[in-house]
Amino acid sequence: MKQRGVTVWFTGLPAAGKTTISQGVERELRSRGYSVELLDGDIVRQYLTKGLGYSKEDREENIRRIGFVAQLLTRNGVIVLVAVISPYREIREEVKKRIRDFIEVYVNAPLEVCEQRDPKGLYKKARAGELRNFTGIDDPYEPPLHPDVECRTAEETVEDSIQKVLQYMEASGYILLAGM
Amino acid sequence: MKQRGVTVWFTGLPAAGKTTISQGVERELRSRGYSVELLDGDIVRQYLTKGLGYSKEDREENIRRIGFVAQLLTRNGVIVLVAVISPYREIREEVKKRIRDFIEVYVNAPLEVCEQRDPKGLYKKARAGELRNFTGIDDPYEPPLHPDVECRTAEETVEDSIQKVLQYMEASGYILLAGM
Repeated sequence: MKQRGVTVWFTGLPAAGKTTISQGVERELRSRGYSVELLDGDIVRQYLTKGLGYSKEDREENIRRIGFVAQLLTRNGVIVLVAVISPYREIREEVKKRIRDFIEVYVNAPLEVCEQRDPKGLYKKARAGELRNFTGIDDPYEPPLHPDVECRTAEETVEDSIQKVLQYMEASGYILLAGM
Repeated sequence: MKQRGVTVWFTGLPAAGKTTISQGVERELRSRGYSVELLDGDIVRQYLTKGLGYSKEDREENIRRIGFVAQLLTRNGVIVLVAVISPYREIREEVKKRIRDFIEVYVNAPLEVCEQRDPKGLYKKARAGELRNFTGIDDPYEPPLHPDVECRTAEETVEDSIQKVLQYMEASGYILLAGM
């Protein structure tokens, strides 16, 4: 039996919790023997999209390129977890349409909470004007209108969020959680 | 039984026959039910490496990026066929080392033959000085020193070349050609 591929796309503000949740989902799936690849924003910018900046155009090219790779993996039966801010609705929709086996996860936390967390100190830099085009501060974020899953990370635990994603994946027929 | 992934990397001068042979290999493998992805130079430059030029630096970034995607697919059990000029030995070696399950195919035809074929009229443009940094004319090509397979496309048929590649893949344990 061949595994069915799917792209699970985590979108949200910086420090909303995308990486943390996607890593938890990755761990759970791997422990069940699934083929999983996590394409995290930082890694992707190093290998796939080096040289791209943070203008709208560059952000779109970034997402399109990640989408292309996610599509290749998905159609070969891999579960692809993508954790990138991906602030623009239109380009997310474009990627979704192309990949088809696609789950959109909105990692939702209020800006104030994200800014308080600020694990890399980037909000601080953006507020100080040392960073430009920072999503949430001086660059827009367009939330999904109808996400498949919404993780409200200011109100629920990381484990809650992970379970939400896994349960949606099971309900959509991409995985089996028997014995969980 | 899960298929074993491998990257089959076709290198050679423009018009040496890389695309033709890799498409033939793709067709044969698909007809046998294998999961295959063909990353062809032209397609890749459209989706993965748009904006990169033909300087040594840009060519290396191009190859590194293709190598990254080939690696993701290979480690998930896909047979990846890469058909790109990839003129520099060192970066080919780097990618090979990283992917490990890797077969280097040297698609070898004399420059004169490639120039005579010139299906896209690019050699002509390069000779006329309308194209710069054209491999074989005013840009170097470093042939593999120890390719796993060598297809001499000026002397053998396309079918011969395809069979050579398939047989090497079988001898290395990546595919089964029973009943061929």
